[in-house]
Amino acid sequence: MTPSAPSDNPDFSKGDGLLPAIAQDAVTGEVLMMAYMNPESYAETVRTGRAVYFSRSRNKLWRKGEESGNVQEVQSIWLDCDRDTILLKVHQIGDAACHTGYRSCFYSRVTSDGLVEEGTKVFDPDKVYKK
Amino acid sequence: MTPSAPSDNPDFSKGDGLLPAIAQDAVTGEVLMMAYMNPESYAETVRTGRAVYFSRSRNKLWRKGEESGNVQEVQSIWLDCDRDTILLKVHQIGDAACHTGYRSCFYSRVTSDGLVEEGTKVFDPDKVYKK
Repeated sequence: MTPSAPSDNPDFSKGDGLLPAIAQDAVTGEVLMMAYMNPESYAETVRTGRAVYFSRSRNKLWRKGEESGNVQEVQSIWLDCDRDTILLKVHQIGDAACHTGYRSCFYSRVTSDGLVEEGTKVFDPDKVYKK
Repeated sequence: MTPSAPSDNPDFSKGDGLLPAIAQDAVTGEVLMMAYMNPESYAETVRTGRAVYFSRSRNKLWRKGEESGNVQEVQSIWLDCDRDTILLKVHQIGDAACHTGYRSCFYSRVTSDGLVEEGTKVFDPDKVYKK
């Protein structure tokens, strides 16, 4: 996929060069995670069909799954009406997007008793991220 | 819902006081929009059960649907593993979240021929937002 005109690209001028990108399971619709993209990571995602983000904490490209193997195969890419948010519909290899081992990063539900963890851990992070 | 401890709340220190909030249809799983929340809008959302964002362009609270009537009834609130992104599962009144009249703001699909609008317009914005 090579978007052909500037107006067909995300408007990175809006987010100080970084825009939020939501990854959603293409089949179940589950929202898996949200991270940020810069123009380079967006271009690589479009070119390779694998999700590449920009890590704000490490200040470099983050090829999702490069360490854990849990890459995200991108099924489709969507931009919102302002072209300042990106939505990826993905196939999550390894069945877990979150570094904690949960399928989705959004496993903490807000309740009147505080946060309650719901969801199932797919893997043990200690075994996947070898120290 | 009144989260009971600071650690049960979003960590607004991470986003210069604003954190991204994703609104997802609670039934279909469709991602409807993404906007931002400050502590005040988050607290009002939790308290009232209706989505309240913070408009960066207008620099004030944005009670979603206050003009169009298309409010979002919040079914559940989720935080991600870093507590710096909020996910709302909502019932979208009026069946459209986007000010353009589309059901979802993510109606523009990235293709090799550029952006292609997919999805159905639910309402005519000229009729809803009376000038």
